[in-house]
Amino acid sequence: MNGTTPQQQKKNVLIVSAHPDPRSLNASLTAFAAGHLRAAGHEVQVSDLYAMKWKATVDADDFPDHPGDRRLAVMAASEQATLAGRLTPDVAAEQEKVRWADAVILQFPMWWFSAPAILKGWIDRVFTAGFGYGLSVPPPYSEGILGGRRALVSVTAGARETSFSDRGIHGELADVLYPLQHGLFWFTGMAPVDPFVVYDANELPAERAEAAQRAYARRLDGLFTDAPVPFRTLTGGDYDHDMRLLPGKETPGASGLALHSRPRP
Amino acid sequence: MNGTTPQQQKKNVLIVSAHPDPRSLNASLTAFAAGHLRAAGHEVQVSDLYAMKWKATVDADDFPDHPGDRRLAVMAASEQATLAGRLTPDVAAEQEKVRWADAVILQFPMWWFSAPAILKGWIDRVFTAGFGYGLSVPPPYSEGILGGRRALVSVTAGARETSFSDRGIHGELADVLYPLQHGLFWFTGMAPVDPFVVYDANELPAERAEAAQRAYARRLDGLFTDAPVPFRTLTGGDYDHDMRLLPGKETPGASGLALHSRPRP
Repeated sequence: MNGTTPQQQKKNVLIVSAHPDPRSLNASLTAFAAGHLRAAGHEVQVSDLYAMKWKATVDADDFPDHPGDRRLAVMAASEQATLAGRLTPDVAAEQEKVRWADAVILQFPMWWFSAPAILKGWIDRVFTAGFGYGLSVPPPYSEGILGGRRALVSVTAGARETSFSDRGIHGELADVLYPLQHGLFWFTGMAPVDPFVVYDANELPAERAEAAQRAYARRLDGLFTDAPVPFRTLTGGDYDHDMRLLPGKETPGASGLALHSRPRP
Repeated sequence: MNGTTPQQQKKNVLIVSAHPDPRSLNASLTAFAAGHLRAAGHEVQVSDLYAMKWKATVDADDFPDHPGDRRLAVMAASEQATLAGRLTPDVAAEQEKVRWADAVILQFPMWWFSAPAILKGWIDRVFTAGFGYGLSVPPPYSEGILGGRRALVSVTAGARETSFSDRGIHGELADVLYPLQHGLFWFTGMAPVDPFVVYDANELPAERAEAAQRAYARRLDGLFTDAPVPFRTLTGGDYDHDMRLLPGKETPGASGLALHSRPRP
């Protein structure tokens, strides 16, 4: 850190929060994170999706220039609208926040082993072709279009931790969250750190809520310095032209989704 | 089949379809499946989520009896409304369709490695506590609350098949769909068969669309007879009380999410 000034350490953080009740544990974790990060000198924006009444579904209204009598091929319409600067104002505003951000945090309760629909709809609508993926942007799974950004999933789960352990029946948490960690963040070039989880969260006594905040504070302090999940780059020589991992590249003993991570140091 | 009559073979099938355009490949696969199953003597209902303008987000309006000044704990409110028969009519109607069905088919384009938000919102809202999970119903991952039903994911993907193969960078398809196959269907007692997928689906020439229909027809013909994915039951002796797979129970060489399947015959 020689020669750096506090100004150079200041970062921009976007928190996207998805719980219907402002008195919920999720809302309190969002408020806590915003306060903690601001106290550390960072700038924070919060997209509180329920408070914003975020429109969750991709449909023809998202692409004002698309002729109503033509079949809606979503990827093509999405790319055309993005490249022409003709997205709806709500989507354009969220894209601007993602571009502004040095880190994106998704805060949500795990519902059916994934994000609530309103947050899935933020992902579906904001990460348009031409913004998050597509032929006009750098290849996925690399330091591509959104490279240089950190990403953190902060999730609450009703289940106990053991059920998400390496032999837990729900699946290991990293595997269950692979569509977000690898499929959204790493696909678009963002570097995800390990998820932060509050387990057994349906009835959380005050002392456990406080312990969760302390644990979350440590993760927020490491948001820009903790090692990210060591996912492999698509273009780094590990994959063939059909996007399959080359024989022998895997970490010894690894199989399943763990194939796509390098060994941890 | 000795002694059975055609009447006894007749089954009820619910197709839940999630694409914004009625001229889309997804809409055509839904129409094809409905026609094919009806021609085989089955009864079919279709929930066309976009046409129904399905409300995607869980919020306080879903629980009319919940006092607005009290914090909304979603699982508790959901269970109370379900057990009291006080769900909203749209949710109650979909639950009735699921109860009626001998098989549920989800038809959707893969967006960000999971279901579109409108379909996630169907799952979030319809599978309430007390209906799909919860303390008042049989344990998950067994022949529990929705046992006896088949389930099929029918999905279109822009990517090529190799990228979803066992070494493909997107993750093996079965692992990417684990939150649906295991986390939704098997969790609630439904028996999922292997997914049906149309890859490279963004620009599908007519001959490939026809080949996809023929392939889909074969899968629909086997909907009630193909072997389901051999997921392990929670209560069958494979797991400990913390829901972890017991040592030595895994198929030799299996790791990751494959731990939770028995070997295929």
